Amino acid sequence: MSILVVGSIALDTVETPFGNAQDSLGGSALYFSAAASFFAPVNLVGVVGKDFDFSKIEFLKQRGVDFEGLGVEDGETFRWGGRYHKNMNQRDTLFTYLNVFKNFQPVIPDHYRDARLIFLANIDPELQLDVLHQVKGPELTVLDTMNFWISGKREALEELITKVDVLILNDEELYELTNIPNMYDSAHELLQQGPRALVIKKGEHGAVLVTVDQYFLAPAFPLRKVVDPTGAGDSFAGGFLGYLATCKTIDAKHFRKAVIYGTVTASFTVEDFSFNRLREISRKEIEERVETLRNMVVF
Amino acid sequence: MSILVVGSIALDTVETPFGNAQDSLGGSALYFSAAASFFAPVNLVGVVGKDFDFSKIEFLKQRGVDFEGLGVEDGETFRWGGRYHKNMNQRDTLFTYLNVFKNFQPVIPDHYRDARLIFLANIDPELQLDVLHQVKGPELTVLDTMNFWISGKREALEELITKVDVLILNDEELYELTNIPNMYDSAHELLQQGPRALVIKKGEHGAVLVTVDQYFLAPAFPLRKVVDPTGAGDSFAGGFLGYLATCKTIDAKHFRKAVIYGTVTASFTVEDFSFNRLREISRKEIEERVETLRNMVVF
Repeated sequence: MSILVVGSIALDTVETPFGNAQDSLGGSALYFSAAASFFAPVNLVGVVGKDFDFSKIEFLKQRGVDFEGLGVEDGETFRWGGRYHKNMNQRDTLFTYLNVFKNFQPVIPDHYRDARLIFLANIDPELQLDVLHQVKGPELTVLDTMNFWISGKREALEELITKVDVLILNDEELYELTNIPNMYDSAHELLQQGPRALVIKKGEHGAVLVTVDQYFLAPAFPLRKVVDPTGAGDSFAGGFLGYLATCKTIDAKHFRKAVIYGTVTASFTVEDFSFNRLREISRKEIEERVETLRNMVVF
Repeated sequence: MSILVVGSIALDTVETPFGNAQDSLGGSALYFSAAASFFAPVNLVGVVGKDFDFSKIEFLKQRGVDFEGLGVEDGETFRWGGRYHKNMNQRDTLFTYLNVFKNFQPVIPDHYRDARLIFLANIDPELQLDVLHQVKGPELTVLDTMNFWISGKREALEELITKVDVLILNDEELYELTNIPNMYDSAHELLQQGPRALVIKKGEHGAVLVTVDQYFLAPAFPLRKVVDPTGAGDSFAGGFLGYLATCKTIDAKHFRKAVIYGTVTASFTVEDFSFNRLREISRKEIEERVETLRNMVVF
């Protein structure tokens, strides 16, 4: 069964201490698709401008990403530019040209509407709500967002949180949402609002899965070299949902493994710019890192 | 077999968002002893002033901490005052009165000198070197230090690093020592200088054990409430060495479990001020948290 993702397609210009990339393929929906497509077919809904070079996403088509939901509008594709600091944990946004993304109104093609799994990548929460109105009772809806929407569209976001099954967010976003300094208290506060599970991403410190009755503590995959962190979060979500798409039932045990698959898939993304690593690896490399990680946590 | 610890005994005045404590029992050697004594007898070498109230450490005597190496000098006991920020990750030192600790010259009693396990708590690296000259071929020597010595006594510290088996330090200290931004690169650089293992403490993000051929990634124990982080690092070392003291051989597998015992023991320390939690719990509670933690990492 396919996964539906709604999000951005961007051309990123990124500077990191290890180099830079100009107008390279990026955006939440693409990073998600590249990651999830190791596991299951993906249906993508997004928008690009007439300048978009479709040959660049041919490799994703070959991996089972369907682009029928990708609109092409008059104008230019969304562009983002950023510069990472030396420690890679902080970045400055150099520019954001929304271009055709500014008026993005997701329209879910009919044959995408019965998706079993849905990823609402980071876009305006009002649009995310609109997507939920267009689909037919998915088994699992996973939401991503960012601080921009937490402060700017809190009401829509709060409504969304009552309607989704899993919330993926980082520790700062969690704090901004609840204003509760303790991560676990924060998580339990949000769980009371509806989601079955929260996945709190802590970057190089791993991720924590919180449900009403358990915690799962996942480390980050140890990397000697991080070249470009862009897309790590969406690749995480892609590995997470991709793995769940392979499971007949979605239970606590599978959530745990999904967090690990998310972690590992993201660990490849950050080893190079754009999709360079995700393009060259196969499912086999992912499975190997999952086993390596397992060996690093047993005691 | 006893563990030998050389370090400070202090009276701490601590303010945290949850309250404060005045002239309460503290210091690296005491926190270490309180933690390690759940597992094995501890021989302590340190110094206090004539103002020190020995009735306060009676509970440690009863747990098998030997204070024959605790000198009593004319003057007052070392006092430290600090205030933690709201997020508990940062603190300001309000005062440091070294008092009798200023002229501390560790003298290891004869019957302590054949210790199998030694913890060199955070004191002047020249004194730590002097301790190593007084003991007879221990099986395992574990070193702690701090940024103050890394910048102030680098040469002595570098000599020490070539002589100890395990280095316990936090991620900032690691970076300051090597000036290499990647944690794993940093760790391998230090391992080349002699130690068998490095334990990198990341506070609420857990700890990483690095040896030449493996990583072990340990999460922190999830806590809904951290009341006072003071002593967490030394309690970690106490649980770490305490557990190793119960092992016939000290190998990679035992190092891993030792990290977990350190993590768990420290998780109790921070739940209240001073030794309040370590005083009331027993080995049983530690074992229970170890099992809880194990359940939180399996996938």
